[in-house]
Amino acid sequence: MPVTDYQTLKDLATRIRIHSVESTSAANSGHPTTSSSIAEILSVLFFNTMRYKVCSPKDPASDRFVLSKGHAAPALYGAWAETGLFPASDMLKLRQVGCNLEGHPTPRLNFIDVGTGSLGQGLAIADGMAYVGKYFDNSDYRVYCLIGDGESAEGSIWESISFASYYKLDNLVLIIDANRLGQSEATQLGHNLDIYQKRLEAFGFNVYVVDGHDVEQLVKAFDQAATVKGKPSAVVAKTFKGRDFPGIEDKDNWHGKPLGPETERVLKHLRSLLKDKQGPLKFTIQPPTARVPSVDITNIKLPFPPNYTLGEKMATRAAYGTALVKLARSNPRVIALDGDMKNSTYSEAMKKHNPQEYIECFIAEQNLVGVAIGATCRDRTVAFISTFAAFLTRAFDQIRMGAISRSNINFCGSHCGVSIGEDGASQMALEDIAMFRSIPGSTVFYPADVVATERAVELAANVKGITFIRTSRPATTIVYPNDHVFEIGKANVLFSTNNDELLIIAGGITLDQALLAAETVAQQAVRVRVLDLFTIKPIDKQAIISNARQCKNKILVVEDHYPEGGIGEAVLSALAEETGIYVKHVAIPKVPRSGTPTQLLDYYGIDAPHIVGYIRELLKRGKTLSTI
Amino acid sequence: MPVTDYQTLKDLATRIRIHSVESTSAANSGHPTTSSSIAEILSVLFFNTMRYKVCSPKDPASDRFVLSKGHAAPALYGAWAETGLFPASDMLKLRQVGCNLEGHPTPRLNFIDVGTGSLGQGLAIADGMAYVGKYFDNSDYRVYCLIGDGESAEGSIWESISFASYYKLDNLVLIIDANRLGQSEATQLGHNLDIYQKRLEAFGFNVYVVDGHDVEQLVKAFDQAATVKGKPSAVVAKTFKGRDFPGIEDKDNWHGKPLGPETERVLKHLRSLLKDKQGPLKFTIQPPTARVPSVDITNIKLPFPPNYTLGEKMATRAAYGTALVKLARSNPRVIALDGDMKNSTYSEAMKKHNPQEYIECFIAEQNLVGVAIGATCRDRTVAFISTFAAFLTRAFDQIRMGAISRSNINFCGSHCGVSIGEDGASQMALEDIAMFRSIPGSTVFYPADVVATERAVELAANVKGITFIRTSRPATTIVYPNDHVFEIGKANVLFSTNNDELLIIAGGITLDQALLAAETVAQQAVRVRVLDLFTIKPIDKQAIISNARQCKNKILVVEDHYPEGGIGEAVLSALAEETGIYVKHVAIPKVPRSGTPTQLLDYYGIDAPHIVGYIRELLKRGKTLSTI
Repeated sequence: MPVTDYQTLKDLATRIRIHSVESTSAANSGHPTTSSSIAEILSVLFFNTMRYKVCSPKDPASDRFVLSKGHAAPALYGAWAETGLFPASDMLKLRQVGCNLEGHPTPRLNFIDVGTGSLGQGLAIADGMAYVGKYFDNSDYRVYCLIGDGESAEGSIWESISFASYYKLDNLVLIIDANRLGQSEATQLGHNLDIYQKRLEAFGFNVYVVDGHDVEQLVKAFDQAATVKGKPSAVVAKTFKGRDFPGIEDKDNWHGKPLGPETERVLKHLRSLLKDKQGPLKFTIQPPTARVPSVDITNIKLPFPPNYTLGEKMATRAAYGTALVKLARSNPRVIALDGDMKNSTYSEAMKKHNPQEYIECFIAEQNLVGVAIGATCRDRTVAFISTFAAFLTRAFDQIRMGAISRSNINFCGSHCGVSIGEDGASQMALEDIAMFRSIPGSTVFYPADVVATERAVELAANVKGITFIRTSRPATTIVYPNDHVFEIGKANVLFSTNNDELLIIAGGITLDQALLAAETVAQQAVRVRVLDLFTIKPIDKQAIISNARQCKNKILVVEDHYPEGGIGEAVLSALAEETGIYVKHVAIPKVPRSGTPTQLLDYYGIDAPHIVGYIRELLKRGKTLSTI
Repeated sequence: MPVTDYQTLKDLATRIRIHSVESTSAANSGHPTTSSSIAEILSVLFFNTMRYKVCSPKDPASDRFVLSKGHAAPALYGAWAETGLFPASDMLKLRQVGCNLEGHPTPRLNFIDVGTGSLGQGLAIADGMAYVGKYFDNSDYRVYCLIGDGESAEGSIWESISFASYYKLDNLVLIIDANRLGQSEATQLGHNLDIYQKRLEAFGFNVYVVDGHDVEQLVKAFDQAATVKGKPSAVVAKTFKGRDFPGIEDKDNWHGKPLGPETERVLKHLRSLLKDKQGPLKFTIQPPTARVPSVDITNIKLPFPPNYTLGEKMATRAAYGTALVKLARSNPRVIALDGDMKNSTYSEAMKKHNPQEYIECFIAEQNLVGVAIGATCRDRTVAFISTFAAFLTRAFDQIRMGAISRSNINFCGSHCGVSIGEDGASQMALEDIAMFRSIPGSTVFYPADVVATERAVELAANVKGITFIRTSRPATTIVYPNDHVFEIGKANVLFSTNNDELLIIAGGITLDQALLAAETVAQQAVRVRVLDLFTIKPIDKQAIISNARQCKNKILVVEDHYPEGGIGEAVLSALAEETGIYVKHVAIPKVPRSGTPTQLLDYYGIDAPHIVGYIRELLKRGKTLSTI
């Protein structure tokens, strides 16, 4: 028996359709037909199947729902309006600047966990939520994720399907809204639901194929799914785009269009379908019964400080693993995720410390990021994601959406730049700083040594938003004492003399080389200053300007990154409104090649001997600069 | 019967193993165990199955081979060394700066079509090659793509599997090297080959499961695959990592490691396996028999010029479609690919013009880009890829690898910036310029109007490397006459008066608004100049500097992009070595929200009234600037 009676579920579906049409027509944009195909799925989930609190939409004990096909937002908003969370009249402000009912869902709304709208990303997030529910919270809340059929062409969906199956996420239900039509033409599989079924079963899912407009079939499928253990379930729902919109249902060329002059005709028809035309409808929303542990992820600290020896050499990537384990000792909700690179990124240290706090995501970086986003929702965990920095480009769209989702997720990208050596260009991150700098609100750490790396990890665990820590493969000299206090956005002068004539700004391997160069020229009474930014974003604008002014208005930036978007441009941005400062910028100008790290630093002109050369050239040039 | 006898194929496999061990030990880095698992697959493909010319490794009539698991490069190089293409002694220079036998394959080698090494990308490229073979060349050359089992976790692989199946690429054979071991632990499916088979069959493949170290089974599988029509084939090969390396075979912790002290012991064992210890081995390489049309993709021109009216308004995205069709009339090898956005990006015009020149790639952007890369290999086509610019972030890794592959592929990203309006942040590209600028050798067009857009498309078709054309959703004013001659790297002054006091640099919608602002203030005798860069990369450094100098050393940059990596930083980079120029940079500072385009341009301060405000502020400030 349903919790809410079938006729009421049907009426709720129709009301969701009415909201979708009214709101998109009021906005004169949006996706009413896409909303219509999922109306029964939402009515059954929200008014029968899911356990949650309307008054507290993100209660940790509640079932989760992720609308991966975010363009069906009007239907989702309509469902929540029907729960009574907000007045249905708000729907008419859809997509307006003054209203948080945006074109696609974002967490500006208190009932939305993550932003969606770039397709294929919701299931990874649902995987992360389900993983946390099953393995961290040891709780029985359930996770529902609704994707479109066109969306199932995204490979990321299959990464997430594979992950759910591998980790036996029996608390997860994937729903495919098979409405047959994509944006610009029919989907690859159309209404051949048996193919979806075969594919999902081959990937280890328990599958129900249902009529997605039949509330009874939906109720039963979700009820049965809840009883299946050891594997995730999927409900493949045969639906029609524009369902119950006469003359529009199942027709091409109605994607993403309000109904315009058809609005009133369709609304009239929809209203005629309501059995209970007055309302309020009598429905039951089941409260959550799951027990969830209370979790505190604030104020996470290294329980003991870095313990290294100044002047020795060690790779920053190694300190990443060390710091992770320290944080995990301080708070067991600190977790690490990796894409089968853990023995190179050093996240393996976490797995060795406690396998429960490590999630192996295999070679599937998009899902890796999505799982982390899901795992951090409702503040359940503090997630650190690692792989080669180059391969994080694979998840740029997920990272971008992570910012829209207001996710607090932390990345560590190892093996940056040509300094990795022999493996060659495909493995070298040379655009990673550009990528992470472009993420709104991000924090980009480029720790100079192992001491700085440990503190970067600690700071990352506490700062909001998306963080990125760039680590290097080769060992670099330890330049900070163990008790150095690091701050986000605070640069440190690592080398200076009296009367410096040039400011050098570098990072990682080039900072290491710049210090060598500074020491070399100092022996010949050539005075330069070396600044470590620590964070490339936010950047210590004040330190750059004041140090540059003290160094005769000359800056040399040397970085193991392509010229665009890296340290050089970050420094130039900081100086945009300053005048009179000359910047020479040295970076990797083209696709690099294989070679030993030493050979490549020389070949691309970013090693100490080359830096000595730039210093000499700049100091000569300095004599003419003063005339500008 | 095999073309080369089975024993010789076995010896060739052993010799491939010997090369792999010797070369990686000489380099003291690399992946001998990963190479070993594919030795028989390569010996059978290169010395029995494939038809090709050793003397002309990229002959268009030849069968193609893509080593998607690029870290097995030593095996591939070893196979080619055995064909006689280059001396086997070159193998000992593997991974050295002076040698093109890099850590992962790149087209610096004349027998490599595309760079690989970021996993999961090769099959999309093979799909593109096979699509061209079947549908454009109407030829019977075949395409073989070898992936790793760990690699099959990449969702992009399943996008490509789906594409191959949908388009019935029966000239394609996917080989999965199921060696059971990933980099840091066992793969998800281990040696459960039946699961691979089920999954591939569910996705529409004809599948053979074989012992990947049995040359006879491999020969037969490839022979049979060649007879299957209407669907692609897959060979799932059960293999062992480090095969024939005693004590190392099938063991953990041997990924990406040369054999070190084990080298001589293993080599001795391998040599003992050779039946013919002296050589040269007698083998047959079958020459190509496929007929391929000769193709000329040089000097592609718009057959007739743009035809618009100055001062009218039109969206640049619309001109993209128009220009595509014009180019296609000039050369039928110009093709368009889209990810189910063709009715928004206007690539639909190409499908309407000639469905044969349009490839629908559905909602799978990674495969979309890979297919284009494959389609352009060996100069068979000129490919234009379009979708919302925001969704191109999904393929950043493919684009990055495209540069390593020296691909000539062209992107058009529509719906950039907040100017798209109601759909909200998930659909707004605000990091696309940053992304494409970071690609080595890229050309980034930001056409001001429809005239400029048509010429950008024409120029893109001819320039080498990766190009990006950023188009806008709203209509903008036509500012160029139809006969304007555009050049890459050449900016144009669109508005100026005598004695200008400020240079405004903007793009797309903000250029439109800047021109309005300039006209507004001109009525009050405030004199500003407006510069259109046309290409953000390469950037017209000289024009920026000279115009800034003529405009009292003051620049205002206004852009519909995040602050990092966009026009502002490109301009600042151009000015790095100049001093005395003040730059005010206005961009979108945070994750935006839904609203009408007009509301959002106002909300984020990039519309004409705001620009008027910045002008006034800067001109006031100018009075104090002169003292710096």
